[in-house]
Amino acid sequence: MERLDYMPGKQRYIYQRKDIFSFSMDAVLLGKFAKVPKEQGKVIDLCSGNGAIPLMLSVRTEAKIDAVEIQDILCSLAERSVSYNGLEEQINVINKNILHLQDEVEWGTYDLVTCNPPYFPVIALDRINNNEKVSYARHEIACNLEDVIRISSRLVKQTGRLAMVHRPERVVEIITLMTKYQLEPKRIQYVHPKKDREANMVLIEGSRAGKPGIKTLPPFIVYGDGKEFTEEFNKYYHEK
Amino acid sequence: MERLDYMPGKQRYIYQRKDIFSFSMDAVLLGKFAKVPKEQGKVIDLCSGNGAIPLMLSVRTEAKIDAVEIQDILCSLAERSVSYNGLEEQINVINKNILHLQDEVEWGTYDLVTCNPPYFPVIALDRINNNEKVSYARHEIACNLEDVIRISSRLVKQTGRLAMVHRPERVVEIITLMTKYQLEPKRIQYVHPKKDREANMVLIEGSRAGKPGIKTLPPFIVYGDGKEFTEEFNKYYHEK
Repeated sequence: MERLDYMPGKQRYIYQRKDIFSFSMDAVLLGKFAKVPKEQGKVIDLCSGNGAIPLMLSVRTEAKIDAVEIQDILCSLAERSVSYNGLEEQINVINKNILHLQDEVEWGTYDLVTCNPPYFPVIALDRINNNEKVSYARHEIACNLEDVIRISSRLVKQTGRLAMVHRPERVVEIITLMTKYQLEPKRIQYVHPKKDREANMVLIEGSRAGKPGIKTLPPFIVYGDGKEFTEEFNKYYHEK
Repeated sequence: MERLDYMPGKQRYIYQRKDIFSFSMDAVLLGKFAKVPKEQGKVIDLCSGNGAIPLMLSVRTEAKIDAVEIQDILCSLAERSVSYNGLEEQINVINKNILHLQDEVEWGTYDLVTCNPPYFPVIALDRINNNEKVSYARHEIACNLEDVIRISSRLVKQTGRLAMVHRPERVVEIITLMTKYQLEPKRIQYVHPKKDREANMVLIEGSRAGKPGIKTLPPFIVYGDGKEFTEEFNKYYHEK
């Protein structure tokens, strides 16, 4: 079931298991959306899965990147991808629940937190995907949105930022929680599957020391009239 | 300086004074974005200017519409437009500051509040447009965003809605205030001047009895590569 894939841009390889977890468009877009520290600096990716976001970020920055993931098997895939790409000096995989980072990190020291968290609240446990490995990634079992934002706010330094990707339905909650935890929303970008369809993904950045005032970036329109990517999206998605 | 213009769709005429106040794209888009009560019902438009939004709404609903405007001269234009279109039975112009509505309205009875409020906080008074009539419409002199949302929340009935148009830079503040005053944000739509440019306008609806969960409607892209409206936008803007 395991395979070694290219990531978009073909600068990085990634180990995947189609039965358990593969990186998604969400991770790639977040890896491109986040503003990275140019050279020095510290980045941490929460709910990191098989490490897609740290791998994407490593193309654009030389900052040290911590990748936090609760599931052993995904950490193992991430670690092997890090080795395969020769990034052992840059990316450090931490096999922990994000609620238990106190012995792993130094609070208030990160320039950037990224997170592609579980999107769905735990409402009806019986409706959760039976594959438990998938469910941790999709449902707020091990941590919820408020945990992610509260912990991100503790992790960043005074000029630090949180960049996350989520479902647009929850943007009111995201904005409310970012404000509650002193992460002022500064940039937002919506992804629409087609130009006449509602958004199905949102990228948002909050800044620890940000003044009020948010920029709404140009929308991504993923597909044209058929099943092909739009020219603009294809170029952006696959550019190096 | 006064002139009688068609509104988009050519179903309504409107009196304008180019030196003082003309309706804008913002008002037209809000007039189309707002969900109206089909037949019976009550609507109120705050910061109504020369009445563009009530005139637009009257094409789609037979509900009674109150139009509140602080400036005499704009009320006079609005009243004459109402007469010219033969809408005296439907639209009632109220010449008041929205802060002083207690003798004019019955709280908690409106199905819909619309508002195209002043967009800019009063920070540097010396930089305000010297034309005082314009400034009331552009700057938060007579009322601010919190006033608009607080009063809207009092005006609507338990299933009522507020639909407003504003600058996207202030969307965090709008969402925070709507939530504070029990108007759950339910629909949002961004307007981008071109497909690769940041949004410069946002339409947002809050519902008094709404459950959490907001829809992000397809973006409006106003202009194509040149100075012409995009085909989609042109059709939407001018449709009856």
